[in-house]
Amino acid sequence: MKLAKLVGDRFKERPADCVIDSHALMVRGGYIKYVAGGIYSSYLPLRKITRKIEQIIREEMDAIDGQEVQFPVALPASLWEESGRYASVGKELLRFTDRNGSPMVLGMTHEEAAVQLVREYGQTYSKYPFMIYQIQTKFRDEARPRAGLIRVREFTMKDAYSFHTSQEDLEAYYERCHKAYERIFARVGIPEVISVASDSGMMGGSLSHEFMLLTPAGEDTIALCDSCDYHANVEAAENITTPRRDAVSAPLSMVETPDAHTIDEVCAFLGGTPEKSCKAVVYQRCDDDRYIIVFLRGDLEVNETKLTNYLGCEIRPAAITEDCGLCAGFIGPYGLKGAFTVLMDLSLKEENNLICGANRTGYHYTGLDVSRDLNQTEYHDFTKITDGGICPHCGKKTIRLSRGIEVGNIFQLGDKYTKAMHMEYTDSEGAAHTPIMGCYGIGVGRLAASVCEAHHDDYGPIWPLSIAPWQVHLCAIRADNEDVRAFADNLYREFTETHIEVIYDDRIVSAGVMFSDADLLGVPFRVIVSPRNLKEGCCEIASRDKTFQKKVPLADVLAAVKELVGA
Amino acid sequence: MKLAKLVGDRFKERPADCVIDSHALMVRGGYIKYVAGGIYSSYLPLRKITRKIEQIIREEMDAIDGQEVQFPVALPASLWEESGRYASVGKELLRFTDRNGSPMVLGMTHEEAAVQLVREYGQTYSKYPFMIYQIQTKFRDEARPRAGLIRVREFTMKDAYSFHTSQEDLEAYYERCHKAYERIFARVGIPEVISVASDSGMMGGSLSHEFMLLTPAGEDTIALCDSCDYHANVEAAENITTPRRDAVSAPLSMVETPDAHTIDEVCAFLGGTPEKSCKAVVYQRCDDDRYIIVFLRGDLEVNETKLTNYLGCEIRPAAITEDCGLCAGFIGPYGLKGAFTVLMDLSLKEENNLICGANRTGYHYTGLDVSRDLNQTEYHDFTKITDGGICPHCGKKTIRLSRGIEVGNIFQLGDKYTKAMHMEYTDSEGAAHTPIMGCYGIGVGRLAASVCEAHHDDYGPIWPLSIAPWQVHLCAIRADNEDVRAFADNLYREFTETHIEVIYDDRIVSAGVMFSDADLLGVPFRVIVSPRNLKEGCCEIASRDKTFQKKVPLADVLAAVKELVGA
Repeated sequence: MKLAKLVGDRFKERPADCVIDSHALMVRGGYIKYVAGGIYSSYLPLRKITRKIEQIIREEMDAIDGQEVQFPVALPASLWEESGRYASVGKELLRFTDRNGSPMVLGMTHEEAAVQLVREYGQTYSKYPFMIYQIQTKFRDEARPRAGLIRVREFTMKDAYSFHTSQEDLEAYYERCHKAYERIFARVGIPEVISVASDSGMMGGSLSHEFMLLTPAGEDTIALCDSCDYHANVEAAENITTPRRDAVSAPLSMVETPDAHTIDEVCAFLGGTPEKSCKAVVYQRCDDDRYIIVFLRGDLEVNETKLTNYLGCEIRPAAITEDCGLCAGFIGPYGLKGAFTVLMDLSLKEENNLICGANRTGYHYTGLDVSRDLNQTEYHDFTKITDGGICPHCGKKTIRLSRGIEVGNIFQLGDKYTKAMHMEYTDSEGAAHTPIMGCYGIGVGRLAASVCEAHHDDYGPIWPLSIAPWQVHLCAIRADNEDVRAFADNLYREFTETHIEVIYDDRIVSAGVMFSDADLLGVPFRVIVSPRNLKEGCCEIASRDKTFQKKVPLADVLAAVKELVGA
Repeated sequence: MKLAKLVGDRFKERPADCVIDSHALMVRGGYIKYVAGGIYSSYLPLRKITRKIEQIIREEMDAIDGQEVQFPVALPASLWEESGRYASVGKELLRFTDRNGSPMVLGMTHEEAAVQLVREYGQTYSKYPFMIYQIQTKFRDEARPRAGLIRVREFTMKDAYSFHTSQEDLEAYYERCHKAYERIFARVGIPEVISVASDSGMMGGSLSHEFMLLTPAGEDTIALCDSCDYHANVEAAENITTPRRDAVSAPLSMVETPDAHTIDEVCAFLGGTPEKSCKAVVYQRCDDDRYIIVFLRGDLEVNETKLTNYLGCEIRPAAITEDCGLCAGFIGPYGLKGAFTVLMDLSLKEENNLICGANRTGYHYTGLDVSRDLNQTEYHDFTKITDGGICPHCGKKTIRLSRGIEVGNIFQLGDKYTKAMHMEYTDSEGAAHTPIMGCYGIGVGRLAASVCEAHHDDYGPIWPLSIAPWQVHLCAIRADNEDVRAFADNLYREFTETHIEVIYDDRIVSAGVMFSDADLLGVPFRVIVSPRNLKEGCCEIASRDKTFQKKVPLADVLAAVKELVGA
């Protein structure tokens, strides 16, 4: 098609509200338009990209015996009541009522709908295993949509659900899907995506992996071991700490610490280090507002995912009121009184000579010896793994933290949904069993944005050929020149006839305007027809990623382009 | 793929709740599953059909310079407030609030979203005309979903929006789109679809057409002229009546009509005919509950669409209460008192010697002469055209009524949305104007169901090759026979390698079970491998529509099938 007719504006200025490059480039290049928080419309170039991504995903899902189906976007609440998630999932599940007052939800994931679709079909063991998937709109009422297409409220997702009669069969299929995901990410142009162990969260089940594109723009933090192949989301990574117990325990003494509020101020004032202090972090349960106090080593941070999983309930940072019984800034485990849930992190186990709060404004203790002074027997891992920390797999201190975007995930769900929704099959002897499930997701728009994040320069995206909106960008510089016009028009016709996907810029604008628009559209190959080139009897062919640029004799242009795009 | 692995159940019994064949066959054949009223999930065979339909639509939209975009399913209410439709559209617009309490709607049509997407882009005349379209999920909270995929609440729709600087340009594009629609319906296998003039309803604008598949299962009624090419939805068809004024007017006399409540009873009692009576039909406005009384000839029916358009407001059948001032069953135009809106249909103009209610229980008038007795000067067309009625185009009494399913529609919207939403462009002189729009819709699922309605027998759908879930259904009868298994497996491999879309039934089941399943899947061509055929050195190839059945030598099967499917 002709660029002059492409709907959407392109511009140079980086929009002020864009914190990551892919967001800025997609706005600047006429890919997306903001409609409401976390809700965008797409223009043609993005729609072409997402359709190609969808087709790649579809081919790979079909290749592992997936069957494409379609579930509704709007689902009756009763389905989510069957699974128990209508009550357990928070506000990200958008609930509403229809004209008859029936409660409904917007599908944010479709385990319930999948079980509903196959509950009768899957009544006999001989039907198993099978996998169904859809590529469909989802809505997740995120509290903080951000970063363009990375975290939105409405998005297109491929979600797949597999059904099995044994854990072994699920594991074998999970592995096939893992490999299919690797092929998908490689085909869309980001083979560097890694899979990391992850937390299963509200999905339930035991084992799950996230596929991560490592990039500073990511919103997840990944722990990678430089000595072995350990990868995990920090949410899921076990944090191992080295005990530092001193040979001699000092006596427990209360000391005045005026004007020292933070761990660092207290340590500086008392001449200690955060590693030898015990800090408190306070939460409240979302269900009954009760206080949870986590004590941990002063240099570590709470991993709220581990805490939530341990408690089995959502939590929020506590509101410490005057009458809650807690002495903000001076909370310590010794002599703490009140109906609080007190949790001790493993990093404190057997530690001594610690600084901690004295539960009295302006006072701390020194010399806390947890085994001597506290009546605490249970210690759990509630902290985040740290950069330079100990690898839970190989034990070396070679953990490196990296940011990543989650571009896909796979879960072994077990029988959480099939059991709750009473799906059963009979085996060859006629005995009834509950099938087990796996589920497998990829966000299409986020994947497009991730590819852009991985492949761009200051001037625009550099789309891989497999998902580029067009394969060739034909520029007629000085299209008012008769020879240029005639040759370029002819090339355009030839490309079109050869089924080469071409965007043709024949506007009467400067080469600068033309090239900056071409940079924003990020088409892999550019063919430049200009009076100067024609005088030399050639065209210029260049790649968007700047790896090559060459002059090709006029008669060879079509053949050269065909070879480049594999037509 | 192998039929044994196809997810979904097929069965013989017609479900009791299915009023039309396509619904019954889609349930029986494992195409759809009921989730909630007007909400279905699709299994693989339907998803394959809808994907092919979508691709045909996409190609035809691209061929008329359409650009595929994507709008959100969930839209901020503010967009619909800009156009005024947030208030004017009824409960079919599903309204809800998000977690922050912001009002939102589920998109049932996307004029507002289309204007929002291109409002800045279209600021200069040189950008026009342009057309954008999407193929996306819509939700319309229908009061009475029915007939399977024909009238649902959630559906996939192709909706297109064109923008123009002149009415002539809009009309020229409208015509191109009309032709594209004809190509689409022909390509999916229902070239018999006709376009009919239609009412524009809540869309606004002046001219619109619906594309109708004529079938008794349809829920629309179409007026067709047997003498000329006039086609119109009865909602939009002008009703022309022949004046029947008698030479002499009898005097107006009140007569007692005990126990006569219906028009027919009154006419029988008084020795008149419905054609010479004046009946009343009473409505209430939905906005302020005021009563609307329509008087019309006794043999005609009110066309509520015309009435709604005239009033500019939704109406409902009236609740005639004891104190509303109306005398139910005896309402007449003479001596009627009260704050009612009284409307006279054209069919009564200059009529005389009519029977009508006397606004007194148990009494009617005879001898009503509307020009003599009533002070009424305005008459409008509020009635439905009738079978055998007068064609508004050629004037002959050759109107025939037929039922139809609306498979598509096109509207000339004018500036309703662009004006309300302040979209403007400057012309070559720098003067500001409001662009005008057209919009063009096709429901994908309804189109699939319509094709099924047009092409099926008692045993299942007969899918046209262009949209069939598979091209070939390969049946291995007695797959436990070694020769059958070997030959059929080999054919399956050859078909697959040749990219022929094949479903392979190699189950150890009877030929009867195999064929009834094949009938339900409706694949155009069937290849049957059986011990008997093999003994004769051939396979049987048959078409699902039963137009042919032949034996083909084994060596020629692949070539014959390739020719049939055009591979």
